[in-house]
Amino acid sequence: MPKVCVLKEAEKIKKPYTPFPLVNVDGSHVFLGLFEGDYLKHRHPYDEFFYVTSGSIEIELDKETVPLKAGEGFLVRKKTWHKTKAKRKAIVMIFEKQGLQSEFAER
Amino acid sequence: MPKVCVLKEAEKIKKPYTPFPLVNVDGSHVFLGLFEGDYLKHRHPYDEFFYVTSGSIEIELDKETVPLKAGEGFLVRKKTWHKTKAKRKAIVMIFEKQGLQSEFAER
Repeated sequence: MPKVCVLKEAEKIKKPYTPFPLVNVDGSHVFLGLFEGDYLKHRHPYDEFFYVTSGSIEIELDKETVPLKAGEGFLVRKKTWHKTKAKRKAIVMIFEKQGLQSEFAER
Repeated sequence: MPKVCVLKEAEKIKKPYTPFPLVNVDGSHVFLGLFEGDYLKHRHPYDEFFYVTSGSIEIELDKETVPLKAGEGFLVRKKTWHKTKAKRKAIVMIFEKQGLQSEFAER
């Protein structure tokens, strides 16, 4: 198992909001995401923990918008509608159960 | 669910090698550890992903020693003997199944 240099891996990601898998951890996985611009409002059947490794993002929930910068994390509980956005490129490490199932809100 | 500022949480940790829980993610959890000095050789019944957020550490395995600095991660597969060490204080974010079961090697 080689070590994972998150910054180097992040350089490989060209397309925003496309999961880039790092490792599997007993049925959960850790992946990276390049966040840039607005993503679609969606929710998952499982919890999702976001940890920002570079840049800053916002997570828009129904009743609040949570700003996060590098070094900050936030847990979006299962079934919670959320929409992520970033004014400039940001790299986010995400922990969640394997599956990547998303239900998108109607627009 | 408040946001988690990893650097601020890390300041609360005074005792090395004592798990400091951050969040539960569907039966897995994310916790912080202050690594300083040598820990004991041990293994777990589940995978363990280490991500260094500040400082640098070493993970000693049977056949190699993996140096990790801030921004780098490493997956220790289940049942793999490992011993972590840090010359100076380092903060590590760890992701694994809930349970925190460790089996220690004889010394």
